This record gives sequence, C-alpha cells and structure tokens, in this order.
Amino acid sequence: MKISELGEFGLIDRLAQAFAEAGRPDSLLIGIGDDTAAWKASGVQLITTDTLIEGTHFSLRYWGWRDLGWNALAVNVSDIGAMGGTPEQALLTLALPPDASVADLDELAAGLVEAGREYGTAIVGGDIVASDTLMVTVALIGRATVDTEGEPLLMTRDGARAGDVIAVTGYLGDSAAGLRLLLDEKQADPEAAEHLRKAHLRHRPPLAVGRMAARLSVRAAIDVSDGLLQDLGHVCRASGLGAVVRAAAVPMSPALVRSFPGQALSLACSGGEDYQLLLVAPGHTIQQVQRVSKGPVSIIGEMVADPEHRARLLDATGKELSLPAAGWDHLREAPWRK
Amino acid sequence: MKISELGEFGLIDRLAQAFAEAGRPDSLLIGIGDDTAAWKASGVQLITTDTLIEGTHFSLRYWGWRDLGWNALAVNVSDIGAMGGTPEQALLTLALPPDASVADLDELAAGLVEAGREYGTAIVGGDIVASDTLMVTVALIGRATVDTEGEPLLMTRDGARAGDVIAVTGYLGDSAAGLRLLLDEKQADPEAAEHLRKAHLRHRPPLAVGRMAARLSVRAAIDVSDGLLQDLGHVCRASGLGAVVRAAAVPMSPALVRSFPGQALSLACSGGEDYQLLLVAPGHTIQQVQRVSKGPVSIIGEMVADPEHRARLLDATGKELSLPAAGWDHLREAPWRK
Repeated sequence: MKISELGEFGLIDRLAQAFAEAGRPDSLLIGIGDDTAAWKASGVQLITTDTLIEGTHFSLRYWGWRDLGWNALAVNVSDIGAMGGTPEQALLTLALPPDASVADLDELAAGLVEAGREYGTAIVGGDIVASDTLMVTVALIGRATVDTEGEPLLMTRDGARAGDVIAVTGYLGDSAAGLRLLLDEKQADPEAAEHLRKAHLRHRPPLAVGRMAARLSVRAAIDVSDGLLQDLGHVCRASGLGAVVRAAAVPMSPALVRSFPGQALSLACSGGEDYQLLLVAPGHTIQQVQRVSKGPVSIIGEMVADPEHRARLLDATGKELSLPAAGWDHLREAPWRK
Repeated sequence: MKISELGEFGLIDRLAQAFAEAGRPDSLLIGIGDDTAAWKASGVQLITTDTLIEGTHFSLRYWGWRDLGWNALAVNVSDIGAMGGTPEQALLTLALPPDASVADLDELAAGLVEAGREYGTAIVGGDIVASDTLMVTVALIGRATVDTEGEPLLMTRDGARAGDVIAVTGYLGDSAAGLRLLLDEKQADPEAAEHLRKAHLRHRPPLAVGRMAARLSVRAAIDVSDGLLQDLGHVCRASGLGAVVRAAAVPMSPALVRSFPGQALSLACSGGEDYQLLLVAPGHTIQQVQRVSKGPVSIIGEMVADPEHRARLLDATGKELSLPAAGWDHLREAPWRK
C-alpha cells in the first residue's frame, strides 16, 4: 500500500501508535495529536535539529529505511551528548514522496523506536509533508547536566584553553570507510567489512561519555560529524586558539587500518559521520574521563596559541601533514550524488 | 552570488548575524553556533513544527522569499497560539538548491526577522542542507500560560463539552481566495484583491487572543490551517462529540463576498491556510473573550452529542449543506502542483 492511499491523517495515526508503544516520559503532558506537545520543564533545556536528505546524506541503495530511522534520531542525540546533556523529547518531520510504501514507513518508525529506546527519547509531535525529495528532520530537546547546586554543566565550542589536551572517543574513519564499501568502491575481508559497514549504517553516539565528561568539568566539546579536523577547527575558531593533532595518536580500528592501508588516516581525520565525541580539557580531567569511560578515550593532541586558529595534523617528526579532503560542506559537495 | 559560493559555514555566519540583530531573549544561554542551543526553562514548555515545501505549500511564482520567511515562522506561531502559549525559541532548517542566490536568502532571513519581532521569537539554531527541493522547517518552542498557582492553562482538541459554543477569530476564506487571485484564476477589484492577496502572502495568527482565551478558561481550541470544517472535525473526534456550524454565521470579509460571490462560503469553510483560531467553550466564556478581544470573534455554532463525530454545516432552515471540497490532506492533494 502507498502512503497516499492511507492519507496524511491515517499515516499520523499509524506512526503515533508505533511511537506510543515505545513508552511516554512522565514529564509529558501532551504528545502527538494536538497543536503542540507540552511537558513540564525545569533547569536548562537544550535543543538541536539535524536533517537527513536522500541524495545528500544517504541513499536507499545502501541504507535501509530502518537505518534511516535510527540515524535520523542518532545524529541529533550526538549533538545533545556533545553538550553533556540528556535527550528527551523529539519532533519528527517527514517529507515523503506520495508513492512511498506504508511498509517502508513502518520500518522507518521501527528504527526511530529502536534508537529512542537506546537513548531514552520519545517522539512527541511532528509534521508530514509530500515532497519529491525524501527528507527526515528531527528536532531534539534535552536537559543539561547540572551540578549539586543545580547550575548547568555545558560543554561548548568556546570553552577550550591553551594547554588543554584534546581527546576523542571510539575510533574515527570507520563510517566513511563503510560508506566506500557500501558503494562497492573497495573490497575488504568479511569481518572488517561487517564492522565498517555497520559503523556507517548505525551511528552510535557515546551519550553516556558526554554526560560523564560534563560532570567531570570538561568545558569544551563538539561531536565529530563533518570530520575530525574540520570539527576541531570549529573549536579553534570559537576558542580563539589553534590545535595540534599527532597523526600517530588518532584512534583507528584494526578493520580500518587493514582494509584501507593508504587512506585510513585521511578517512579518520576528514571522512565525517563518525558521531564520536571530541573533548578538550586539562590533562588530569581527561585522565579522569578515561578512567570512568567504558569505551576508548584517546588523547590525540593539545590546544595551542595560534592567531590563525588552525587545526593542524603533525607526523612523528612534528612536520605538518596535509590531507586530500578538508572536511564536509553540505552546500558544496555530495560526492556520491552522481 | 550563489549560496554554494558562500558555502555552508559562510551562509550560517550570514544568517546568524541577521538573526542576532533582531535581539536575543534574556533566558537564552547558548544560541546559534554550538552543538545545541540552551535556555533556562520553568513551568510547562510547548513545541511544534511545521514545514513549507515549494510545490506543495507555496510557489515562488507568487510568494516572495520574504513572505516565505515570515510565513514559515507564522504557521508555527499559530500552533503555539492555539495552545494559549507564548512562542520563544525557534530552530530553522533550510533545504536549499545550491544555485539559490544569497540575495534571496537575505530576503528569507528578513522575513523571519520581521515575524520574529512581531511575535517575540528568536532563532537560536538550525540546520542547512543542500536539496533539489526548497523547504523551510521551523521548530518552535513556547511556554504555556499559567494560572495564579503556576498551573498550565492549555487549550486542547479534546477539551470540548456538549453545549459549548464554537467561535472563530477574524475572517475565513481570505487566504484561499487570495491564492486564486495570485494564480490568475480569477479577477477582483483592486481594493479587494489587495486585501485577499495579502491574507495569503502574510499569515497573521492572532496570538494575543489565544493567550487571553486560555486565561479566561477556554479549554478547547485549534488553529484553522487545513479548513474550518476539517479542523473542527479534529476537535469533534478528540472530544467524542459532533459540531453544528450555521453557514450564515461563518465570518467572511466584504472583499471575499464581493469577489467570490458563488464560492465564498466554500472557501471560508474549507479553503485552508486561514491561521485563525477556533475556540470552544461555554457561551459566557466566549462572550468574555469577545469583550476583551481587539479583533472580531464570531460565534458560529455549538458542540452536540453525535456518535459519528461529524462537523456539519447547516443553512438557515437547519438543512445540512455539503461543500465541494472537504479540506486539506497533504499527501493526497496539491491543487496547484501541475
């Protein structure tokens, strides 16, 4: 069945039912089905929004509808995590070709519900519109982590100080490598291929690490979504500093290094869509984060005075490396949009 | 200059500057330029989102970019108003063809700033993505009106009771008539044409009336966006009631009646995009709203017991009228998309 046969209100009812089964937060007063959602709030609220567009951010040639649902929420969870916050209410905007199938929409909803369970969020409203272009937008509300006095503990791009060390969670470059495998641009052994593809199909922002880092007084962070060096560049400009990153310290998975021997560093530094967390703080603070974090947290460099606010990658001899790709600009490039 | 020459981050900086000039609310801790926005909240928060897509909701053949900016915010203000709330923070998602011009984007920003000044909202974040389809999404946060004890006063679709009267603000049908003039489907005298076109190009939700109605204990409301009878139908189903509307009481502007003598009632009852407010409450409560409202508030019918939950239009003899169009379903129709 096509969604146009179900109609706008039939589709809203169907999605509302799928989301209702995933549970409803206690603070929610009004959910899907009225002019607005409503919830009881206190303290500091956070909000972010990110859109995934077919042809620009993904292709259904290699993402399933369920991956699309999961990732549409996960990329927003990543931003709330980079503030050290806890995501709560989500709004979902779907721009859908009228010939999309109801079965595909059910898969999309299932992916959103799965990610919602994983990260503790509920979809409380949204909008559905007809469009030639498939587009999924999530606006995600969260609450800030607070100290014992109730003051918000926010990690911002402008919170870095000269001498702070730079750390990153997990491995970088896997998602970009996985995309190349999904596009059949490259082969890899089955185990590595499985790991890398999964990194691209299911983004897994390390939400708990963000919250923990905020509690441990990390004051500067950003999520790595456009590529390590580009995102670190945002921290540099906002903080009025430069950054040096030691290439040998950039965390890369064995699967990445094995499958992309010549390109691994480039993918790790500017591949994009990692959805890992970059943390900037004094060394002893980062060490505390490392001690309590379940996953890897790697120290990769430090913040330095630099009037040009550059994020530079250095080799073992201290010489600057220049990489082929400079990061991701959504208005300029969409490399697989051919 | 094309926006692709400016790049994603250049465009974000340009928009951020335009929005910053419009002012920044005191409660805002972090605005555009970080992973999330952050603000101090208390009480009950409201959120809504609405998208405008070229070809489905509008065409640049007759909307200017400034109209697009204004309306993208105004349609969301309308939803917050229908809850009796006060809009505050907005997120803006732009899906833009890379060959869009920077001058057009400046106009769009100017329309958003104008509407933001009018309704007291600030754009605190968002997302910009490349797309073949032009699309503007706003997610708007507001706060609920509260009583003297701090309890929220919310107007919902399920708050109607049998015997409540139905009232509507302003005039209905002007916007749909204006669209037909803009599409050159019809002629009108210059004065009427100006009034009707303006109703379509600049939606003006009566925000203050919504807040006032909530304070005066109106407990059921909806904004009239898809057409009077369809939106009233949502109230009927949510409240488990029926509604009767007297055709002669439906408020129509002299310009509409003069220019569309045969179609005025149909446009007023199911034309859509009115962004007026439908209020449902006991007669004495609606009379209080009428006394304090600056603009017209017309009583058009009442809620009745009806197991079929119909919203019916009656002529002067009490006979049911059936209208050619039944309302608006975004997945099924886009009449000017030819």
